[in-house]
Amino acid sequence: VTITGRTRLYAIIGDPIEHVRTPMVFNDYAARAGVDAVAIAIQIGAADIEAAWAGLGAMRNLDGFVVTAPHKGAAAGLCDRVEGAGLDAGAVNAVRREPDGSLTGTLLDGEGFVAGLRAQGIEPAGRRVFVAGGGGAGTALAFALAEAGVAALTLHNRTHGKAAALAERVGRAHPEVAVAVGAADASGHDIAVNATALGLSDDDPLAFDLQRVDPGALVAEVIMNPETTRLLREADARGHPIHRGRHMLEGQFGAMTRFFGLPLPE
Amino acid sequence: VTITGRTRLYAIIGDPIEHVRTPMVFNDYAARAGVDAVAIAIQIGAADIEAAWAGLGAMRNLDGFVVTAPHKGAAAGLCDRVEGAGLDAGAVNAVRREPDGSLTGTLLDGEGFVAGLRAQGIEPAGRRVFVAGGGGAGTALAFALAEAGVAALTLHNRTHGKAAALAERVGRAHPEVAVAVGAADASGHDIAVNATALGLSDDDPLAFDLQRVDPGALVAEVIMNPETTRLLREADARGHPIHRGRHMLEGQFGAMTRFFGLPLPE
Repeated sequence: VTITGRTRLYAIIGDPIEHVRTPMVFNDYAARAGVDAVAIAIQIGAADIEAAWAGLGAMRNLDGFVVTAPHKGAAAGLCDRVEGAGLDAGAVNAVRREPDGSLTGTLLDGEGFVAGLRAQGIEPAGRRVFVAGGGGAGTALAFALAEAGVAALTLHNRTHGKAAALAERVGRAHPEVAVAVGAADASGHDIAVNATALGLSDDDPLAFDLQRVDPGALVAEVIMNPETTRLLREADARGHPIHRGRHMLEGQFGAMTRFFGLPLPE
Repeated sequence: VTITGRTRLYAIIGDPIEHVRTPMVFNDYAARAGVDAVAIAIQIGAADIEAAWAGLGAMRNLDGFVVTAPHKGAAAGLCDRVEGAGLDAGAVNAVRREPDGSLTGTLLDGEGFVAGLRAQGIEPAGRRVFVAGGGGAGTALAFALAEAGVAALTLHNRTHGKAAALAERVGRAHPEVAVAVGAADASGHDIAVNATALGLSDDDPLAFDLQRVDPGALVAEVIMNPETTRLLREADARGHPIHRGRHMLEGQFGAMTRFFGLPLPE
């Protein structure tokens, strides 16, 4: 990347930031697409997001940025406008500067998860899918999987009421999908997804019981770090096909360039 | 440059920003020095500097930034601490993040001007120097030239009182230098410097009368864009050696890396 005073800026904000891969992925893309733009990683602590936000807004050649933990929820409240899945989840992970300087946010995790499945040859349409976790990621996945045409969707959350409220919203938006609330039991499903934060540490309990997952069912993860969580390791040992969290990130890159108004990747 | 989540950030802030060369110079240096750091150019409008400043302060992996027009004066007021020539001039062009997160600013223009002269084989010590302009740049140059050991320094400013006040301050700090206030007449000097903003446009009047410059005297400039101002063009036509504004920028790169705590350039 050769950076000049004319180079348009993109960024990823989060804390910690050392592990993010967006700058490499974006800068490889920009070089190949012939786009004079560069992405950097900016470390912003949770307590500093409001001050940082005003600063990001004042940087006129910053055309967009990716938002990662712990800022996805706060960023939704700071955007001038939230659209798409960002509205459903109350969280955003991509923010674009409009010509008038205002900031529009959206959440591409759900779209990325579905695209990531498809990139691995897994078509979710018509399948029965179990999702553990009713937070931002779970919400994004639930809406995107319903949109993608799954036959049935079972949502599980430790706090039952949260799963019930999410099921009600998804069911209302997608009456063609059989949406239900369930225990930590993925039996009877083709795909079982962990969309909780359990697995960031190897000592975490599993989000659902692997003994209850149907033989041959796909076990999927949204956690990217570690690349292979204990859930995936144990599912693999039991003979399940597995699907890593990084596919969700890789799957949303196309949607992200479209959201930013950049050329689509090859 | 390969940018990762661990890459330390540097920036130059200003408006307009398209013409700046800091990112190229810095990134070439970083690659050669093996420093995992990248510099970007950030466009910040004059009215947005306070909001942007809070944001820059919140970016924990931004280790330092260069300040250019129109922010040098405002930045001095926003720094937690100003040192060196920044105190003399009430303006800063380099800001460093301290381990405690506070921001320290300094002004390297004067040091850069002197280093730039020396890099071109011109030793200012013992010479008689005329400086037009008592603003930020003129102040920085006056102090740095006195520090460098010029024999005499004549300061000119359209507002006489401003030049007189500056001459008094420089003379007090450097009693060994003969500091005087003069008209727009550089006769009797070895070096005549334009440190005003006159010359940004080719239609500007000249900052001093070229007919009064001694034969063989060096005519120098702080304006970088255009690279060759009308003053330099006409001085060259009259047979004077000339010294461009870009040498001041090139001359301060070493001081800048030292201020940022980075390895010195080769």
